[in-house]
Amino acid sequence: MQPIRFELIARDSKTKARRGRLITPHGTVETPVFMPVGTQATVKALKPEDVKEIGAQIILGNTYHLFLRPGHEIVKRAGGLHKFMNWDGAILTDSGGFQVFSLGDINKITENGVEFRSHIDGSKQLLTPEKSMEIQNALGSDIIMAFDECVPYGADRSYVEKSLAMTTRWLKRCKAAHTENDKRALFGIMQGGMDISLRRESANQIVELDLPGYSIGGLSVGEPKEVMLDVLDEAVDFLPTEKPRYLMGVGSPDMLLEGMARGIDMFDCVLPTREARHGRAMTSAGPVNVRNAKYTDDFSALDAECDCYTCRNYSKAYLRHLIKAEEILGATLLSIHNLRFLVRLMEGARQAIESETFEHYKNGFLNTYYGKP
Amino acid sequence: MQPIRFELIARDSKTKARRGRLITPHGTVETPVFMPVGTQATVKALKPEDVKEIGAQIILGNTYHLFLRPGHEIVKRAGGLHKFMNWDGAILTDSGGFQVFSLGDINKITENGVEFRSHIDGSKQLLTPEKSMEIQNALGSDIIMAFDECVPYGADRSYVEKSLAMTTRWLKRCKAAHTENDKRALFGIMQGGMDISLRRESANQIVELDLPGYSIGGLSVGEPKEVMLDVLDEAVDFLPTEKPRYLMGVGSPDMLLEGMARGIDMFDCVLPTREARHGRAMTSAGPVNVRNAKYTDDFSALDAECDCYTCRNYSKAYLRHLIKAEEILGATLLSIHNLRFLVRLMEGARQAIESETFEHYKNGFLNTYYGKP
Repeated sequence: MQPIRFELIARDSKTKARRGRLITPHGTVETPVFMPVGTQATVKALKPEDVKEIGAQIILGNTYHLFLRPGHEIVKRAGGLHKFMNWDGAILTDSGGFQVFSLGDINKITENGVEFRSHIDGSKQLLTPEKSMEIQNALGSDIIMAFDECVPYGADRSYVEKSLAMTTRWLKRCKAAHTENDKRALFGIMQGGMDISLRRESANQIVELDLPGYSIGGLSVGEPKEVMLDVLDEAVDFLPTEKPRYLMGVGSPDMLLEGMARGIDMFDCVLPTREARHGRAMTSAGPVNVRNAKYTDDFSALDAECDCYTCRNYSKAYLRHLIKAEEILGATLLSIHNLRFLVRLMEGARQAIESETFEHYKNGFLNTYYGKP
Repeated sequence: MQPIRFELIARDSKTKARRGRLITPHGTVETPVFMPVGTQATVKALKPEDVKEIGAQIILGNTYHLFLRPGHEIVKRAGGLHKFMNWDGAILTDSGGFQVFSLGDINKITENGVEFRSHIDGSKQLLTPEKSMEIQNALGSDIIMAFDECVPYGADRSYVEKSLAMTTRWLKRCKAAHTENDKRALFGIMQGGMDISLRRESANQIVELDLPGYSIGGLSVGEPKEVMLDVLDEAVDFLPTEKPRYLMGVGSPDMLLEGMARGIDMFDCVLPTREARHGRAMTSAGPVNVRNAKYTDDFSALDAECDCYTCRNYSKAYLRHLIKAEEILGATLLSIHNLRFLVRLMEGARQAIESETFEHYKNGFLNTYYGKP
């Protein structure tokens, strides 16, 4: 018996967009969903209550970071990540694979796993499929991700082919090592670079394992957006309709909409909180940099159409002041707004899918946000 | 008609401690009170709701900082500091004098005022008694402080004497320039260094102006604690009983208790929030540095006797992790705790004064917190 259940509620007729519901041991997640990132057992600058109030039902935690600090054994002894960080909603953790490749100083990639040095203290570490499962089970996430190799954009075909085969072998080891099947669901990850035939190959291999969900990895790794969307468009169809589909690391408004149009159910990205800390906001009138001098005496809300705590209580002039003065509250207030902005974008998209107006919603948003070409 | 009213409710019989109530245009403040510092229109790392929940009824804003950034005219146009920062409790602002002397690069002190260079952009600035009143009236504080010269510890007697006379002349200019007497109360500041006769001289001069409250300035400027307490002990008696007495910049638990024992009603200090950002907490079992390795797997609350949000929801192990990982939430959670700790210390003190057990309360706290000698 799987600990999560995915229900498809509605489908858009003009696009591949779908409206669903993911029932987890820590509550129901309406999909398509954007998951705020809580890398180090905290969504940066926010209390769990803030994240709840924003409307988030699921957050993402990073295995790589939590493995290195404070260590998964500590989190396990604390009663798991939910209890440790005081978050009672759902949690998905990544496998650590992506961060090993992007943050760690890699010594060696072998069939066994990846040897690397910690970005924190330089210590030698080893991540394997089994280790990733051990860590994620210790963290106690509701959804755990398979340990995979994320191939950089531009890698040659033979490398990508060998790598995706290894990722499949790693996935089988993950499945074997994942002991707590009743408590958390293991998602497989499709690789295959930008080559459609390799994407199909990868998909066929992982779908055979009949996992409760699948992710499309190895996109948004430096390729042009058009390339990514073309690959995504075809790759999605290699995955089973009845399982949730997760596009990792995507969170710009346009890519969320394009992803949804192609049938993606789940997204995550550090973008909204990272941008917030630099004073950059997403608003219904388009991007806003609150550092801009024109906001010095602009006492209106950041986004007139937004219902978030920040927009209800503070002015652009105040936010500008906080960011210029490097006050922590600036990061908090802008993070609240940016996350709420994306959560509202998804709320609107879900309604639009239900009423079969998703394409209109998508085009309307893109025109307003980015301006007509 | 003064905008604030001070009522004395009870007095301790063994010490000079007093229990009072300060009624301001933004609510009632129970005294003795510790005022959290919101230097740049924010109590660092906290939302106003956090400050409220902690039990704070009044906060302090810094004229020097707000004058330089975002500028008092901006705050005024925003509707005043209360509205700008979304705080509906009482606000006291300092005069900018102390910060000019401690942060600014001083060019010249003259009878007119102080010329200095901004610590932000090096621009040439001038603060005078009239300017300080203009700024504080623009900010819209409930209590505003006179512009004074804070003399460093060790200055010779003739300098201190001349300086306190100038501070009195500046106070008279403040009183003349403070136009909005119906909206905010001007407090005078006693100077006089460590010399009791000069303290008396200063007090006599400022008390004559019949202001709604008085502050004792020029203490906690580098002198030994014993010297400070001796001066404080005598200086307090030079001030009228029926007016509130404010000891500026004091906030360590021992000095709060010693100050209360000598009849001080109001305190402020950046200590609790600054210490918090460095991982240092005040607890009922004494000081705690959460970075300490022994807290790695300590899943108990920071302070078993504390009722704050942090102690209700998080463990020492989690707080340690946040501080070590330099997560903003660590500063937020420890600031909440440290401020609540001092607010509770004051709550306990107020009860003890009412029940005439203040000395017992004070000694009990000092023995527990600092350990018996």
